Amino acid sequence: MTARTDDKLWMGPGTLEIPLELFALNRRRLVERLRPKSSGNAIVVLQGGDEVPFYDTDTTYNVFRQESYFMWAFGAIEPGCFGAIEVNTGETHLFVPRFPPSYAIWMGPLHSLEYFGKKYNIPHVHYSDEIASVLEKLNPTVLLTLNGVNSDSGLTAKEATFDGIEKFVVDNTLLFNEIADLRVFKTRFEIAVMKYVVEVSSAAHRKVMRFAQPGKSEYQCESEFLHHCYSVGGCRFVSYTCICASHTNAATLHYGHAAVPNDRFINDGELCLFDMGANYFGYAADITCTFPVSGKFTPDQKLIYEAVLTSNLAVFRAAKPGVSWGDMHLLANRTLVEELKKGGLLKGDVDAMIKAGMGAIFQPHGLGHLLGLDVHDVGGYISGQPVRLQAPRGLEKLRTNRILGEGMILTIEPGCYFIDILLDEALEDPELSKFLVPDVIERFRGTGGVRIEDDVLITTEGVVNLTKVPRTIKEIEDWIAGKDNDKYN
Amino acid sequence: MTARTDDKLWMGPGTLEIPLELFALNRRRLVERLRPKSSGNAIVVLQGGDEVPFYDTDTTYNVFRQESYFMWAFGAIEPGCFGAIEVNTGETHLFVPRFPPSYAIWMGPLHSLEYFGKKYNIPHVHYSDEIASVLEKLNPTVLLTLNGVNSDSGLTAKEATFDGIEKFVVDNTLLFNEIADLRVFKTRFEIAVMKYVVEVSSAAHRKVMRFAQPGKSEYQCESEFLHHCYSVGGCRFVSYTCICASHTNAATLHYGHAAVPNDRFINDGELCLFDMGANYFGYAADITCTFPVSGKFTPDQKLIYEAVLTSNLAVFRAAKPGVSWGDMHLLANRTLVEELKKGGLLKGDVDAMIKAGMGAIFQPHGLGHLLGLDVHDVGGYISGQPVRLQAPRGLEKLRTNRILGEGMILTIEPGCYFIDILLDEALEDPELSKFLVPDVIERFRGTGGVRIEDDVLITTEGVVNLTKVPRTIKEIEDWIAGKDNDKYN
Repeated sequence: MTARTDDKLWMGPGTLEIPLELFALNRRRLVERLRPKSSGNAIVVLQGGDEVPFYDTDTTYNVFRQESYFMWAFGAIEPGCFGAIEVNTGETHLFVPRFPPSYAIWMGPLHSLEYFGKKYNIPHVHYSDEIASVLEKLNPTVLLTLNGVNSDSGLTAKEATFDGIEKFVVDNTLLFNEIADLRVFKTRFEIAVMKYVVEVSSAAHRKVMRFAQPGKSEYQCESEFLHHCYSVGGCRFVSYTCICASHTNAATLHYGHAAVPNDRFINDGELCLFDMGANYFGYAADITCTFPVSGKFTPDQKLIYEAVLTSNLAVFRAAKPGVSWGDMHLLANRTLVEELKKGGLLKGDVDAMIKAGMGAIFQPHGLGHLLGLDVHDVGGYISGQPVRLQAPRGLEKLRTNRILGEGMILTIEPGCYFIDILLDEALEDPELSKFLVPDVIERFRGTGGVRIEDDVLITTEGVVNLTKVPRTIKEIEDWIAGKDNDKYN
Repeated sequence: MTARTDDKLWMGPGTLEIPLELFALNRRRLVERLRPKSSGNAIVVLQGGDEVPFYDTDTTYNVFRQESYFMWAFGAIEPGCFGAIEVNTGETHLFVPRFPPSYAIWMGPLHSLEYFGKKYNIPHVHYSDEIASVLEKLNPTVLLTLNGVNSDSGLTAKEATFDGIEKFVVDNTLLFNEIADLRVFKTRFEIAVMKYVVEVSSAAHRKVMRFAQPGKSEYQCESEFLHHCYSVGGCRFVSYTCICASHTNAATLHYGHAAVPNDRFINDGELCLFDMGANYFGYAADITCTFPVSGKFTPDQKLIYEAVLTSNLAVFRAAKPGVSWGDMHLLANRTLVEELKKGGLLKGDVDAMIKAGMGAIFQPHGLGHLLGLDVHDVGGYISGQPVRLQAPRGLEKLRTNRILGEGMILTIEPGCYFIDILLDEALEDPELSKFLVPDVIERFRGTGGVRIEDDVLITTEGVVNLTKVPRTIKEIEDWIAGKDNDKYN
């Protein structure tokens, strides 16, 4: 039986123990950041998530998953909670929902406030319906609530609200930028969790690479991945819908997200592009492997794969604290274009091609993104940080243009795809068509694409790859052939 | 590759082909029902579901799943759709969202209206943003929209709305009751789908019964179930959160639904109560198996299991068209109480015990519910049908009190649980305590509970069990011992 009150979150034997200190440290970092910027008796108030009904039914969308800002600060995994942190003292309050006795019949034991205090190592626990009176007694000069726009979705963060909040002075302008910026830099506790979830996901990817034989369907590969992550790693959720794209489907960047996807049956010799990542207590992995179903790359597959891998490795060599992520995106683009030129798909001056936007024809997405409690983690574009660039074409897709710093975790995920509407557009555009070698391009049409996505940590030394999957042509061919069983553990 | 435009929905080889005629027949049934009740040129308008963002992020709650009324009528699995049916002629219109060209890069091919017409065998397909003008040309006297309360959740069905609807006469009072009532009675096409999803779920349950060895966790059992349903049956979703309750956890009726559940590791000799059901294109299974981890029932486990099985079988024998479901609930309660009396847990007059509400002490939930596109399917309590009863205690939990009729699919799921707060209450209540044998009751405390849940079809003959799992003590012990491998196929 798992020890729910043992100062940690975990799924039991064989899974990672997350110390509650992870969340306590985040709260300390938050109050240290806020103290110089707030005066008087300021109190941070965050509202956790609620369950979402599935249409008008009495079932819900999956099992409850906590809202990320709340999870980051409190680590509490129940719906219907609030949390408060006194900025001056760091004292923390957790507010949990009050249930009727019948809750015990349907949902499980009715726990005491003391139970939650011990479970989350938070000294002050109250019922959610007491929040106004509890806060009133603390006599705050201001409540700091969360309000800001997620730069990936355009949606606004969930701002805390409760009956009686109108009695308080509320400032919703300070908190968002500070907490989003703190979430960008992972603590040693968070790095340990990220390593775990990336390792679980890596092992699941390795398993799927061998499982994906001719005649299997994309969804069977997805199921194999999900089963490993949950059964072996204790990860009940994935961080995003699995993209299990075989052959031409790989040219759809979010293939698998549309209705009844991942239903194609794969054939000998096709490439599979599988983009899948587990989630452990909120923390997300995001890994893409591209490999041939037969276990052997054809010369054309090898050409594209090595072009993307060269692009990926160029970023690995260059990325380090102080470097701009936008520059890394352009480096990846440039490297890919150079490789495609060497391969005979492109011709002409590489600088001119980049300027004309050729990078976005073959890789119409950003190089990578921040990764953490959200798969597209927050803090990409916030006040005080570099703004989103619009040119050369493709940079507008980049989810952050920040200067790299120690403790950041990001994906490095260059790709090369043969997408009909983009190729057609380029062939018709005089600024781009002059660089294309049409008959070679046509040879690659309908072959899908390649993406190589690693999850990396930025350290003082440079880049540490958390991902443990075969990456070179030889590594992949050897792995699928049954070799190297202990190499990636 | 699956043949998406071949007059069927399916997940490819090895999975069930759902003919589009299923949905066409539902539409014909609907207009036949509505014609006598509407006059002039009435048009039914239903709005399909939309994707739901996960908090403020750019990810969503799982993959899109269609709203059930819309699915029932149109079979279209994309978000952002509308559907319209002309009551006089039965002519059907599907409205699909219009996407920008960039959709093809991220989500997949941009399909033509003709494609959707062929995919769903619907003659008139338009873009969703054209709905007002298309309907205007049809010159309706009234639009019939959906408005009514789901009697399980208390939530209101999603009523169609669009820009320009204010130009039409709208009647939202007629449709709900008629369509909910039609959904109660399954057509031959729907019965075939229900049989499939129940068979897939049965096979997955059988697999889990053998997998659940000492040292495995509840969540590993859940993962095994999910993997079988998806990988073998093509069922990407389950119909509700898996309840994987071992030992005492079985006394929590919706164990597994709370935050980070199913995390207990199971031990030799404990009972497991696993309530899990796959979902295939919306159609839901809902099966519970209770079995001993060791593969051998103890005498006390056998006593309770056989009491519940006797209750289950009593309903099987009695249920048929014309019988009231409320009476079946009371029959199950009475049978259980009689068996518990025989087993020495209760004493005294059975009639008096039932009247005092003893049934709800040991089974604080209804006998079963309608099953279809929703796991707790609609039509349980609608206008013109028997109302919810409040006594004896427990009947208020019953999700329908309808008279059984041919074509209904329901669950039969009696149970017997040892729930501390209910036992304590009964022991303190003079009306109930006189029937209890305290020392025997205490022997069973902390042992969890038993539920036996089958999915059944009501026919002219009586009850057809769609569920294919071992049910008697001998069948279960034999199955776990590795016998009878072909018995349940």
